[in-house]
Formats: sequence, C-alpha cells, structure tokens
Amino acid sequence: MTADAPRIDGARLLGRLAELARIGAIEDGRGACRLALGDEDREARRTLDDWMRDAGLRVTYDAIGNQFGTLDGESDGPHVMLGSHIDTVGTGGRFDGSLGVLAALEVACSFRDAGHRPKHPLTVAAFTNEEGVRYQPDMMGSLAYAGRIDLTETLDTIGIDGTRLGSELERIGYAGDDAPGSLPVRAFVELHIEQGPLLEQEGRTIGVVEGVQGISWTEFVLRGAANHAGTTPMSMRKDAGVVAAGIAAYARELCDTIGHDHRATVGSFELEPNLVNVIPRRARLTVDQRNRDDGLLRRADEMLLARARSLAAAENVTLEHRSLARVAPVDFDEALVGLVQSSAETLGHSSMRLTSGAGHDAQILAPSLPATMIFVPSRGGISHSPDEWTSDEHILAGAEVLLAVARELAG
Amino acid sequence: MTADAPRIDGARLLGRLAELARIGAIEDGRGACRLALGDEDREARRTLDDWMRDAGLRVTYDAIGNQFGTLDGESDGPHVMLGSHIDTVGTGGRFDGSLGVLAALEVACSFRDAGHRPKHPLTVAAFTNEEGVRYQPDMMGSLAYAGRIDLTETLDTIGIDGTRLGSELERIGYAGDDAPGSLPVRAFVELHIEQGPLLEQEGRTIGVVEGVQGISWTEFVLRGAANHAGTTPMSMRKDAGVVAAGIAAYARELCDTIGHDHRATVGSFELEPNLVNVIPRRARLTVDQRNRDDGLLRRADEMLLARARSLAAAENVTLEHRSLARVAPVDFDEALVGLVQSSAETLGHSSMRLTSGAGHDAQILAPSLPATMIFVPSRGGISHSPDEWTSDEHILAGAEVLLAVARELAG
Repeated sequence: MTADAPRIDGARLLGRLAELARIGAIEDGRGACRLALGDEDREARRTLDDWMRDAGLRVTYDAIGNQFGTLDGESDGPHVMLGSHIDTVGTGGRFDGSLGVLAALEVACSFRDAGHRPKHPLTVAAFTNEEGVRYQPDMMGSLAYAGRIDLTETLDTIGIDGTRLGSELERIGYAGDDAPGSLPVRAFVELHIEQGPLLEQEGRTIGVVEGVQGISWTEFVLRGAANHAGTTPMSMRKDAGVVAAGIAAYARELCDTIGHDHRATVGSFELEPNLVNVIPRRARLTVDQRNRDDGLLRRADEMLLARARSLAAAENVTLEHRSLARVAPVDFDEALVGLVQSSAETLGHSSMRLTSGAGHDAQILAPSLPATMIFVPSRGGISHSPDEWTSDEHILAGAEVLLAVARELAG
Repeated sequence: MTADAPRIDGARLLGRLAELARIGAIEDGRGACRLALGDEDREARRTLDDWMRDAGLRVTYDAIGNQFGTLDGESDGPHVMLGSHIDTVGTGGRFDGSLGVLAALEVACSFRDAGHRPKHPLTVAAFTNEEGVRYQPDMMGSLAYAGRIDLTETLDTIGIDGTRLGSELERIGYAGDDAPGSLPVRAFVELHIEQGPLLEQEGRTIGVVEGVQGISWTEFVLRGAANHAGTTPMSMRKDAGVVAAGIAAYARELCDTIGHDHRATVGSFELEPNLVNVIPRRARLTVDQRNRDDGLLRRADEMLLARARSLAAAENVTLEHRSLARVAPVDFDEALVGLVQSSAETLGHSSMRLTSGAGHDAQILAPSLPATMIFVPSRGGISHSPDEWTSDEHILAGAEVLLAVARELAG
C-alpha cells in the first residue's frame, strides 16, 4: 500500500471514452451504433475485456453475456458493483451507458494504481442489451441478473433481424458459464448521463437520483363513422378524431390535476381516412404517463380512461384501450442516495435530488439489492443521438463522486 | 296542344337512371366511375345526346363541353335551365348529378309528350367536370359558364393522369363552338340528392335549399422540439402535438360558440416522429369550417387562429397557417326558393328548408342568375360511394316538384 489515496486519472478516462466511441462510430465519430450482440458490440466487449485484464481485474461472463471485472478484496464477501452497459441504440451517443462502465473501470484502476486493496471485492459490470433495440425486452442483462426473466426463453429471443439471441451470443464468443446473479452484491451504483435537461437548467453538476419514474403506456383506438364534413350536422356525427383530440388535451390537463411532477405525452396520433373534408372513422393515439408514485400513476390511468370513456360515449364512438407497457416506479436505497449526496458535497460539487425519467439497469436491480445512480448533466437534455454531450468537467466530477462512494462502500 | 297536363313518366326516368349507371359501372352496378372527359364520360354524353334528340331537343355544346338540350318556347327569350352533371368521382353512386340531368330531361319529355309548348325555352343542362377528380377545379363547367374562370387557361389544365383537358375534350368529341354562358338564363333549378342525413332524419321528402354553406379550410403546422417523454419536465416542453390537439378540441367547441349550425371538422392530423415515448417535434392538422353566413365563417376563422396562436405561444411552439380553400356562402334566389316550397306543398310532399353542405353547379351560377336547388333524401346521408341510395318514391317526388317548378317558370 502506498500513502496516496486513489485518484481518478481524467486523461485515461476521457481517452477510453473516446476510444470506445470509435467502435461503431457514426457521423464522423460524433455518435456510435453498437447494437447488442452485433460485431461492434463484440469489439467493444473485447476492448473492455483487455482494459479490465490490464487493470488486474478477474474477468468473468455469465450465461446472458453480462461482463464483470473484479478487483478482489480482503473478504470474499458480497461485492460492491459499479457499472452500466456498452451497447447503444442505432443513433447512439458517446456517453449513454459507456460512461458508467468506463468510470467504474477507472475507479478500479485508481484503487490498483494507489495500491489500495479494498475490504470488499469491487466489480465493474457491463450488462448485456440494455437498449433493447435488436432484441426485446430492454435492460435484458440486468433482468436476467435479477432473476426477473427466464434465461432459456431469453436466449431463444428472436431479434428484429431474425437472429436468435443465444446463437448470436455464442457467435461473438461471450456466452459465459456463470448463472446470472450468482455474484452476491452488497451495493450497486450506476453513473449515467441524465438524458434530461434538469441539471443543466438548474446549473448543478451532480444529480442525486432518488428513484425511477413508473411508466404507463396506453393505446386508445376510437371507431366512429366516416361522413361528409359539410353535410353532416354536428349532432349526428360519430367523429373518432374529436374524441382522440379530447383525450390528448385531457392527458396534458392531468399533469396539473395529478401534480407531483406527473408527466404525460401523446407521442403517436393517427386518423383514418385522414382527409381534410371527411369525418375520421378511426383514430388511434398513445398516452405515455410517468410518475414516481405508483398510486398516483394508477390514479392518472383511471382518470384518463374515465374521461376517454365519457368523451367516446358523448360522440357515439366505440373505445378500445390496452396497456402497451407498465413499469412500477422504483425507490433507490435511501442510505446509498444519502451517500451520493454527501460525497458530492464533500467534493464541493453542486447537486440536486431528482428522479430518473428513463429506464436503467439500476432500477431493475433495485428491488433485489441496494442500488442507486449518479447523474451528470446532458447538454440540452439530448440523448440517443450523436448530439448527446456531457462536458469533460462533468464527466470527471461524476467519476470522482463514484470513486468516493465506492471507497466508502468497498472500504 | 293536348288537354293533358305534362306528367312525369316514372318508369322512363328510373329506367334511364339505371341505364346511365351501367356506363362505367363498378361493384356489380351498385356504383359508377365516369371521370370527366374519359371514355365513360364520352359514352354517357353520347347516350344523353341520343335521349335529348329523341325528345326533340336541340342539342348544343359550348367550348368547355357543357351539354345543352333545348325545347324551344314561344319566345326566344331567356331560357329556363334545369340540370346538373353526369361525371362522377372514382367511387361514385348512381344518383349524384345524374338525377338532376335525367329528371330535367324527363321534364322536357313530359312537356313534349303532353304537346305542351312552353312560353320560354326550356333547356336541359349537363355541366362538364363537376366533380373535379381528374382535373381541378371542381364545378369547372359552371365556373366557365358563369365567366368565373378563363377558358383558355382551363383548356390547358393538366389532369392527375398528365393529360391536357382541352385535348381530351377534343378526343372524346365534345368540344363545342359556343362560348360558355352565351345562352341567356332566366332561372336555373338543380334537383340533387341531399348527400347528407337531414331529410331522412326528419322524415321529409323534399329539401327546399336556401343556399350553400361557405367553406374555409385551414392547415396548421406546429413546430416544437422532439424530446424524451420521461426525462423532459412538463414546463420545459415544446410539444407540437399538444398544441395541435388543443386546436382540434377548440374547433369543436367553436361550433357551440358560433352557433347558427356552424360545422367544424379536423379530418387530417399528423405527428412527427409519431413515436409513443417521444414528444412530437412537428404536428400538422387541417380544420374544415362551414357556415351559411360569411361573417360568422370569418369570425370562426379569426377565433380559431387566435386560439391557435395563444396555445402555440404558451407551449413555445411556432405556428404556421394557410388557407387551403375558401368559398363564400351562397344565398339562393328567394322567389325560386319559395316556388320550390309552394310546389312541394301543392303536390302534398313534406318538405323542410335547409342549406347545402356540399358544393354544386347551382351555387356557382347563383351570383350571376336566379338559381336554386331541390334535394331528395340520401339513405344514411351517404354519397360518393356505391352505397349512395335514394328510393324510387323520393326520386319521383323530386322530379314532380322539378316539373311543377318548371311549368311555373317556363309557362
């Protein structure tokens, strides 16, 4: 052991972020495309594997391809796990996922460089297929790790390109032997870009993530009768479109009614026959609702459905609805959340508590083990785009907080 | 002259309606497709020409192809003109247009059969290209007749199939020598199916048409910013879709606010990128508004635009709008309207006054000469479809009213 405390090597971390971004680079290297279990994912895994071994980590893979690099501790006891994912969407940026994995690697490297042997083993994790673009569902690796999806069924998943997931995992050489979830974990911490505008807007460096919003997606289909816009009196219409517009307008209204930062978005809206002078016979829209509180989210769903029913009945239009997705909100471990906040304060970084609006591996693991996240600002709130950007200063601040948290947890 | 009064020969009229419907028949003869100046239109014109000559009418064509059959009267003086059109939309029915022309022919035949020579010349008219499917604008023949479009430019119109209108008119052999509008007209009466549900709904046989609604079509384009539905707080959104939904909902509200049977329809509504969890960056919708009163129609347009502007401003979304169509309302000649009503009453047919929601040749001619229309019920309000249907009883009632009106006007 040296007398030096572990320190983040900013140049190394930024260099590795840039190097990883060259794998599957798009738009002159501004972004990247590394769909899960494709050739670019293989190359990124191989690069990460090399870096882990160079850092003296013990590299293991589980049967869904989750990649772990462990710095052994004084005890065999439960691991402190830090990480995220290295796959991307088709038009991915340079930071989503990669930052959490490479900052975790940097923490392990800083321990080694300082000759610091932790009390508990420290594991760097890269979970398979977080994005869910090529194979559904997203956050697959962490779901398998948490035992929330069946491994055999998951390996048989057919992708959008017709490939079988398990076969692609074998092909790229990353089907491991370990059962997912076999590593005992005492805490999981994921550093991630915010993918939202709040930190930038508020001028804060560190987001102390208290939990993840619950998500409810509902599809409404209205069926009325197509008719002439000129000759059909208002009282005799069965206008599917006007009901859909009323539902959309009410979804926005609900954000005020429900309060507590409730969010509602009508992202998709379609009419048939979609002609200027024909009353729409069919309308379809989706409503995406999000809330930190599961009871409020359920109440919002109920109120939306009640309004949709009354609007449809008033217009003599039939209503069908179905849930396209429902994810319960997650509260992160309060002790870990407090540790992130105090670490940021100790390091002199401004911070704010917030809720994640996007889904992450940490949220999947949170019901099974103590977990939390650290956010750093996203310029313009943009992600899933080559325009995704986080400043070097914020990247290093996030890594420093991650290191401080890891030192506290791993000892 | 015989002692018999002119009488409608119902079998002849119904037989000719059926025969005309066989030209361009679609869906086992339930409907017809006779696009203007196509081969089916030529065949229909030839058939009508034969029937007119058989009835002893003097057949003439003008330079836009409007087809006239005149029963000479005691005077050369201005003509009493009855008619409509025989072209159809692509999925046309058996009655739209054809009824008005063939009932007019039946009136002329009834005069001749009764040996009744009218005081004023009686002219059966079939106007070219009322539907405007193959060549724009619609109601072209009556527009040329009323001197409201330039003949040379109109003949140079290029159709949706790339053909030049004037060349097609020559090809089918119906380019006449007369200047459009050269026949002086003392009154024009058009019998037509309602193409709306009111007469059926109210259980009336004859629609006494007071005028035609004005039409205003507006397109709104909203531009905001695409963003993540989960991570973007409501206060920071530029949601083009929610503004569009608000405009659509307000268009319906305006019908109550404006009153006077104001009609508003959002027939077309599109979002980009149209994904469930992405805030729409662009929305486009059309609003079709109709009113009998031009001042109220203008007021509705102004109120809609003011609301669209305030909704867009509140959401930080840019608004573009443009008028896609604007047709002023038309009031029919009150003396003629009264004559239709009294004729229906004399014949013992139930009637009601109403406003046409669709466009017709009579509305184009009305600013230049005394004109009106007679409506008969459309089953289910349906037209422009093989499902278009009017009962034999209602067809004959309409023809009888047309005859009574013609007798009064022609003497």
